[in-house]
Amino acid sequence: MVRAIFRLVPAFNPPDFAKPVLAAAPDARFVPAPADGVLPESFFSTTNLPTYVRIDGAWRLPREPRMDSALVLDADGELWVREGRRVRKGDRVAVGTAEDGREGIYVHAAAFMEEVGPDGEFKFMSSEVSREKPIDYALMADILVNERDNGGYPIWVAGPALVHSRARHDMVWFIENGFVGAMLAGNAVAVHDIEASIFGTTLGMSGAGKATQGGHGLHMRAINAVRAAGSIKAAVENGVITDGIMHALVKTNTPFVLTGSIRDDGPLPDVITDAIAAQDAMRAHAIKATMAILIATALHAIATGNMLPAFVTESDGSLRELATICVDSAEFVVSKLKDRGTHQAFGVVTNAQDFMHILRLYVERAIDQRRIAVAAGATSDRAVTAAR
Amino acid sequence: MVRAIFRLVPAFNPPDFAKPVLAAAPDARFVPAPADGVLPESFFSTTNLPTYVRIDGAWRLPREPRMDSALVLDADGELWVREGRRVRKGDRVAVGTAEDGREGIYVHAAAFMEEVGPDGEFKFMSSEVSREKPIDYALMADILVNERDNGGYPIWVAGPALVHSRARHDMVWFIENGFVGAMLAGNAVAVHDIEASIFGTTLGMSGAGKATQGGHGLHMRAINAVRAAGSIKAAVENGVITDGIMHALVKTNTPFVLTGSIRDDGPLPDVITDAIAAQDAMRAHAIKATMAILIATALHAIATGNMLPAFVTESDGSLRELATICVDSAEFVVSKLKDRGTHQAFGVVTNAQDFMHILRLYVERAIDQRRIAVAAGATSDRAVTAAR
Amino acid sequence: MVRAIFRLVPAFNPPDFAKPVLAAAPDARFVPAPADGVLPESFFSTTNLPTYVRIDGAWRLPREPRMDSALVLDADGELWVREGRRVRKGDRVAVGTAEDGREGIYVHAAAFMEEVGPDGEFKFMSSEVSREKPIDYALMADILVNERDNGGYPIWVAGPALVHSRARHDMVWFIENGFVGAMLAGNAVAVHDIEASIFGTTLGMSGAGKATQGGHGLHMRAINAVRAAGSIKAAVENGVITDGIMHALVKTNTPFVLTGSIRDDGPLPDVITDAIAAQDAMRAHAIKATMAILIATALHAIATGNMLPAFVTESDGSLRELATICVDSAEFVVSKLKDRGTHQAFGVVTNAQDFMHILRLYVERAIDQRRIAVAAGATSDRAVTAAR
Amino acid sequence: MVRAIFRLVPAFNPPDFAKPVLAAAPDARFVPAPADGVLPESFFSTTNLPTYVRIDGAWRLPREPRMDSALVLDADGELWVREGRRVRKGDRVAVGTAEDGREGIYVHAAAFMEEVGPDGEFKFMSSEVSREKPIDYALMADILVNERDNGGYPIWVAGPALVHSRARHDMVWFIENGFVGAMLAGNAVAVHDIEASIFGTTLGMSGAGKATQGGHGLHMRAINAVRAAGSIKAAVENGVITDGIMHALVKTNTPFVLTGSIRDDGPLPDVITDAIAAQDAMRAHAIKATMAILIATALHAIATGNMLPAFVTESDGSLRELATICVDSAEFVVSKLKDRGTHQAFGVVTNAQDFMHILRLYVERAIDQRRIAVAAGATSDRAVTAAR
Repeated sequence: MVRAIFRLVPAFNPPDFAKPVLAAAPDARFVPAPADGVLPESFFSTTNLPTYVRIDGAWRLPREPRMDSALVLDADGELWVREGRRVRKGDRVAVGTAEDGREGIYVHAAAFMEEVGPDGEFKFMSSEVSREKPIDYALMADILVNERDNGGYPIWVAGPALVHSRARHDMVWFIENGFVGAMLAGNAVAVHDIEASIFGTTLGMSGAGKATQGGHGLHMRAINAVRAAGSIKAAVENGVITDGIMHALVKTNTPFVLTGSIRDDGPLPDVITDAIAAQDAMRAHAIKATMAILIATALHAIATGNMLPAFVTESDGSLRELATICVDSAEFVVSKLKDRGTHQAFGVVTNAQDFMHILRLYVERAIDQRRIAVAAGATSDRAVTAAR
Repeated sequence: MVRAIFRLVPAFNPPDFAKPVLAAAPDARFVPAPADGVLPESFFSTTNLPTYVRIDGAWRLPREPRMDSALVLDADGELWVREGRRVRKGDRVAVGTAEDGREGIYVHAAAFMEEVGPDGEFKFMSSEVSREKPIDYALMADILVNERDNGGYPIWVAGPALVHSRARHDMVWFIENGFVGAMLAGNAVAVHDIEASIFGTTLGMSGAGKATQGGHGLHMRAINAVRAAGSIKAAVENGVITDGIMHALVKTNTPFVLTGSIRDDGPLPDVITDAIAAQDAMRAHAIKATMAILIATALHAIATGNMLPAFVTESDGSLRELATICVDSAEFVVSKLKDRGTHQAFGVVTNAQDFMHILRLYVERAIDQRRIAVAAGATSDRAVTAAR
Repeated sequence: MVRAIFRLVPAFNPPDFAKPVLAAAPDARFVPAPADGVLPESFFSTTNLPTYVRIDGAWRLPREPRMDSALVLDADGELWVREGRRVRKGDRVAVGTAEDGREGIYVHAAAFMEEVGPDGEFKFMSSEVSREKPIDYALMADILVNERDNGGYPIWVAGPALVHSRARHDMVWFIENGFVGAMLAGNAVAVHDIEASIFGTTLGMSGAGKATQGGHGLHMRAINAVRAAGSIKAAVENGVITDGIMHALVKTNTPFVLTGSIRDDGPLPDVITDAIAAQDAMRAHAIKATMAILIATALHAIATGNMLPAFVTESDGSLRELATICVDSAEFVVSKLKDRGTHQAFGVVTNAQDFMHILRLYVERAIDQRRIAVAAGATSDRAVTAAR
Repeated sequence: MVRAIFRLVPAFNPPDFAKPVLAAAPDARFVPAPADGVLPESFFSTTNLPTYVRIDGAWRLPREPRMDSALVLDADGELWVREGRRVRKGDRVAVGTAEDGREGIYVHAAAFMEEVGPDGEFKFMSSEVSREKPIDYALMADILVNERDNGGYPIWVAGPALVHSRARHDMVWFIENGFVGAMLAGNAVAVHDIEASIFGTTLGMSGAGKATQGGHGLHMRAINAVRAAGSIKAAVENGVITDGIMHALVKTNTPFVLTGSIRDDGPLPDVITDAIAAQDAMRAHAIKATMAILIATALHAIATGNMLPAFVTESDGSLRELATICVDSAEFVVSKLKDRGTHQAFGVVTNAQDFMHILRLYVERAIDQRRIAVAAGATSDRAVTAAR
């Protein structure tokens, strides 16, 4: 089954360390940080791509890769990627700006590249993200079922449109059926989900999309009810919250992180209001992620994209691309995500409700087809092929 | 079953002709047109709302209602709505600008209004069109099944994204299952549909959304093949076109109108290149329409919206709102349609592929539920309720 | 001059306390909060509209009005609007859900309404926010110059597109010429502004809009430089930051608030990373605001909109609408802001660079015209008229 | 001065005919068309890029280059690009699908390419079209002034937002000051411009953006007035139309083409309602174009883009890129234009009103600076540099 994944996403091209610039590369140079949270001049600023650092003549991949951070060699000789604010005075930080290995650091940009044709060929429909492109739900469903069946850790990141649009039921289905490693969201997603559970509205809007009289206060009443209970878990347990996304997360013990923002009403007691603490909580899941599904949120999608490597390191040390799906009603959010370096994102330009509904349908079909294939004695490898 | 429709859409409020301004209204005044295609000064400019014209003391509704046109009383005393260009010198044209009946013409703007609360109440989520609103597919499916089962004439109007996004198969299903009264589109929809049938691509883009090498010429080859055959029907019959939307329209004898634009390649032989002739061909269907589904097209949606009354006149003379669904990836097109007077449009902000896929799913479910309900001896009225 | 403002924006319609429901209204009922940060059941949830509370037979307006909060009567008999989280156990909180005065609380929704025509009139172009609407820069310039000359406190709220688009110079001009009461933004605005000052790029993009080689690390180097200096002010003083928005704010002693988010790199030392502390810092300015200009930011615009009353209370107790301008490239953000209750927002659908450039031009013209008018001995009132 | 242009846009890289595939290329093969308007099987489908055709051993560029057409060798040995519908039975049409010269036809895709860095380098802000990119008005102004001063033929293509947004005055300025070679638009632009001249409204919307009572009929009255006059020119001459875009075009004898669409009310007498005749009328200007400015229109921008080569052939036979500016409120239109092959389009994401206002301002400045430079005895070449 494992190999099946590799056929769905671009294969890894290992770097050619015999190539002259790499063969002749010096060891990377490390310089102590001048103060807590301050990096040395000309520190190496990381990307989300596989990055090889030459230490004692050997090329090594750092742990916890992400972009916009520094390379730190700790006292035990372990190599880490660390945000600048987490560096302490005296920590050994890699310096250099070349990314081609000539200063001992090699960013392997072509790790997952597909073959491309000759430059400048005249083509129509070559834009990367467009509402005019077909959406391959069967492929996404296959990747998702593979992730679940292979013990992957898909992280789901969502904005409040997921709840306004009544995709709550489908999100619950994914949680209850084991497709969610962790869920990352803001206060609003939880508030509207809980408002929907208690009052049947989101921001006072009914399931039919109508503003209700007096509805503007209902999300405040929902927040107040949870504050009175002390936590979302307590509100689930005492029967205040009886269904929905937060209910399913609590009931299935699926980890979630709710992060705060200046837009928050309340907030709910579970919200991590400090942005640094919130980033730390998100990173704890990002470093385990084997897939990311980002739905209807610019802020959270970009925040998560910043923390995610473009690849997954398998237990055997091999690398594969980290499948990243970004769903939004507008091309703009996906382009913005890519403009912030999350180049591997695959954009789906549609709304949250429809995306969730169809993805679930295709996942249900993929599961059925695999079950049939297994029953028929087929090898799992063939089953995957049939599912396409 | 007929009554069921009325519960799904706003009921008609008949005008109160006893109200003083209407009771005291004079007959409408008619003035001869000064020249072919030229209206008299201060002609009455029509809207798409029910419009009552007082003639010989009686209030009459004109035939073929639409906006941006004139009221013409013909030699036989028949009252018509006519575009200015179709008026001949000497035709009797209604004059006046008042719409409240005081000059003998009453525009019944509140015909289908819902009750509204007190002005200015503070509400969230009160915008009319937004990607953050839930989409009620069950309601749309119910309306569509009712239309089919009651002999309605739903017109479908589509842009090329329908084809690029690979919603072709679902469109074919709607055609083959009797849900399409007529289809109105431009050259591009037919070209890309035929390109997909012959080459498997649209504008050279594969079903996986990739630009193909040499693909930029494939739509030209598709056009050339149909031009060589002489017509789309001939190309279906000689086996050049083997599947898809145009194939289904031809095979099921469903009427279609392909209208030309300055963007057209080719065009295909069936395209009506003159905009006036094309409008006349569209109007032949618009005046019969009992429902409109406008998908992923600004030009064609607004053109059709201009020709459609906001209501359907039943055979017994009663009126009901003409259900108008406008699907687009952006709020802008729906708002633009409303800004051009098609206020009754219900906006669905999503992409064409997902809309078609889910709508079909819900229609299939609605049909199943009705079948079960009928089998169970339920009255059709209860069946509809169950289907919700 | 003061009266001039009133002609530019809707006049205040005072409530009619003689109207039966208000004349017969009871005193509002207050109930103690059950715990810190928890409101009593059926607390009154505030709006951003003028809200009159009957206490001891008199109608009173609370201090620090905003939406989504509670009405609290303190020990000294002072009436406040307070977010639920700031309420302490035992605080007296108003209860009731009626907004028409019948429970002693009256939300004056029609305070700034313009006359409207008969319901349902057929109109084109009646959408509220659209790129197809003209932008009245002369009116906005006039309001802004009036604000400055009358000692107003306009708050400016901006997103990073302001900096990417190179509207920095125009923003500096507004700061240096006294049009900015306070500036509210996030880490990114300051980071990119400082990156532009030090390296000439924003996120590595040159002023010509091209991605530069190695550019992806420049914002990190900018952050590191300020962290090394200790604060933005220190970095201005030690010559690291030599121009731009942050430089102008520091040099002119204009207050600013930088609030944190989970997307932040760094962050800069001045950023308030806790969302609650950040909201408190923003509110300190929001309660003084006499005008708001929200540019190219969904998060910050909505956060500020949540805190702002829809009106300004003049020193003589009279009310006027709080002019709120929301600039974004898409109708969506403005509609979203209105959907979150900031109904008074006037939407400008354009990009930040062009908006700033033209607004500055019109403000310069308005100033010139007033100067000329004053020189000509005209009364200031006439000058304003001329400036239109 | 001529050289100045070349520094503003990418220089032309001539093809290297000595390269093996080109040196060894056969003559292109021509096959007679089988019927009027029908091309031979495997006809060569053109692009908008410089295309060299080998005939009798020599590489020749065809006349009237455009995409989606055929290469036709006429009886006189002249080589043309012709739309398939214009080909007559027996015309000699080039066949082949290879674009690298191996079948005697070479598409020079790299003609205007800039140097690019190594593949896959990690970069931020590398999307092609984004509202977050700065707009270089100084560059556009310079190109436009150069075009005028060097006898260029800039074509302007506009949608109705140009008129709704009240950019009429700035458009008039460009017409009156010689910056418009020809104007291409639809019925709506002329209708709203004339409605604004007669009634002060566009689609009944006042200059302050408000829908006016009874306003929905005003565009119909404007159309009727012009129909009564017989033509736009006649309506200008008889005093019906007193200002605006159409007035300026008539008064300055600037050629314009108004093309019809199915959305048209009226239409105005000058509108070419047949799409094929309309394309022919547009092409007459497209083949002369030395620059294109496409504003707030998807239909007309893409239609014009289809007809335009990506380059200008100078009188000495040399080539330069055809500067193409596409202005729209959304990235989508520009991306769509590029997806239809107009890769050279430079996208400006803003609204029409602001674009026109600022572009005019910069053009006025560029003119002033050149005048000063000339007065100072500077060479015009230096003047251009100064103007930057």
